[in-house]
Amino acid sequence: MITTITMNAAIDKTYITPSFAIDKLHRVKEMYAFAGGKGINVARVVHALQEPVTASGIIAGHNGKFIEAALAEEGIAHQFVAVEGESRLCLAITDPSTGSVTELLEAGPALTEEDVELMKLTIARLARTSTHVVMSGSLPQGCPVTFYKDCVDIIRENGASPILDTSGDALVSGMEGRPLLIKPNEHEVLKLTGSDHADEDAILQAIHAVMEQGIQSVVVSLGAQGALAGMYNRIYRVTIPKVDVLNTVGSGDSMIAGLVVGDKRGMLPEEQLKLGAACGTANALTPAAGMVSLTQVEELMKSISVQQIS
Amino acid sequence: MITTITMNAAIDKTYITPSFAIDKLHRVKEMYAFAGGKGINVARVVHALQEPVTASGIIAGHNGKFIEAALAEEGIAHQFVAVEGESRLCLAITDPSTGSVTELLEAGPALTEEDVELMKLTIARLARTSTHVVMSGSLPQGCPVTFYKDCVDIIRENGASPILDTSGDALVSGMEGRPLLIKPNEHEVLKLTGSDHADEDAILQAIHAVMEQGIQSVVVSLGAQGALAGMYNRIYRVTIPKVDVLNTVGSGDSMIAGLVVGDKRGMLPEEQLKLGAACGTANALTPAAGMVSLTQVEELMKSISVQQIS
Repeated sequence: MITTITMNAAIDKTYITPSFAIDKLHRVKEMYAFAGGKGINVARVVHALQEPVTASGIIAGHNGKFIEAALAEEGIAHQFVAVEGESRLCLAITDPSTGSVTELLEAGPALTEEDVELMKLTIARLARTSTHVVMSGSLPQGCPVTFYKDCVDIIRENGASPILDTSGDALVSGMEGRPLLIKPNEHEVLKLTGSDHADEDAILQAIHAVMEQGIQSVVVSLGAQGALAGMYNRIYRVTIPKVDVLNTVGSGDSMIAGLVVGDKRGMLPEEQLKLGAACGTANALTPAAGMVSLTQVEELMKSISVQQIS
Repeated sequence: MITTITMNAAIDKTYITPSFAIDKLHRVKEMYAFAGGKGINVARVVHALQEPVTASGIIAGHNGKFIEAALAEEGIAHQFVAVEGESRLCLAITDPSTGSVTELLEAGPALTEEDVELMKLTIARLARTSTHVVMSGSLPQGCPVTFYKDCVDIIRENGASPILDTSGDALVSGMEGRPLLIKPNEHEVLKLTGSDHADEDAILQAIHAVMEQGIQSVVVSLGAQGALAGMYNRIYRVTIPKVDVLNTVGSGDSMIAGLVVGDKRGMLPEEQLKLGAACGTANALTPAAGMVSLTQVEELMKSISVQQIS
């Protein structure tokens, strides 16, 4: 089983609002609401790839119940820790007449020390029956910055491989535990190594530096330019086909899902990267995060190339 | 007991969003969420006036559970009919830097014929132990336009006085049952009588015409100009003090609450109107709909004058 952790699960809601304007009243005729948050997106794609998955993390209140019910409806197993308060609503107001996307993100619940301990115990238990535990996204209020570092250790001690997809201090701290895989963006990876260049050479050097810290895989997504990746001290370039992008939200999460499923299935690095890039690209073709199909992913894999460059 | 009916109960949520701009991402640091909908606002003010009240109507899904829990926390008794779907979210994005209020109103659940019948049976049962049943707001999808007319009859047959605060076709139809009180705005009352003038004389003629149809009381709120009201074939002018208005949402509902409590307590028309106007004015001084205090209402009553003008 693969477990995903979303420490601030959300309802992702989209309003389709033609002629959206400030200081006006709009009646929302078309809207979508899904269980959201980066780890949940990962779980959705792992599920689409037909690999057993459990979504875990923190939920709260009536919005939390909505998230659980929505996952159940999608057939995704889940085991969340419920805390006081309300899970956040992340609202995207899209205006098809202008293409604008106005986002309003609530903060979500604040954790107590007890909540944090309960979450660690839950992760430990899930890790015992998992091959991989993927931790995605930012930490909620009340959660110490060292949380992911502690969890990397807990996951490994309980026999699973830890994967970390976050940013900022939570990433810097979490990397100390040497997770199996991280997926910083290009700015983040350069910041990790203190580089002030932004060219490909600087990214490649940064990838090498991260691998030298004992992190097996580091994947840097470059959007339409594909990705650069380091795995087992080798560097790969991933080239993706030109596609009509509908939505890039969740593409990074989808890529993680492909990479983790690839690792679980014992694929070679080139094949893992191909599956990851296909999932990320498939996500960009669908309106909602992580709503990819296996057929679509398999079709896209044919037009993705992965080349070892050093 | 007074019963209030909200056929499309909502979560009323406010985001305080400085520098709100289209096509940007905003992290919401300050927000409020209340049980909302016009009948719920009425119930809140009846409760503040220390009169027993039950809020009823239609709720759905996890948002419906939120509404019930929020009412319970306020100490307001409730007995809703739960249907399929999700109760709507009514979002107000307020920008303190410009004073703008951007509103996004979801549609809410659609009712089946069975839901409508169950609601009627619930209203019948509540009417039996109520002196007044207040029906407020628009009808949800799937609810026939004659619904309020049917309910006016049902309420009266079960021994309570029906009060109707709605607009458009639902008002026109509901008036056929001759509710005790309606509260159209000035445009609505002129439309009811087909008048194309908009001066005070036209409003007074329209009020007379409505009373002649067998509706005992018709109150037309004029905002800062107070109100004109017809009761028992007499006409009254209500004059309110000049106040610093913070929020007018819910002022009409608050006025209804005062009028109904006044009627229940056997007050004379002048005193009923004074209590109603005080509740409406008190609401305008508070940031959220219906969050008035008894002290505030009693204080405001001293500066409101009601004069019989014909």
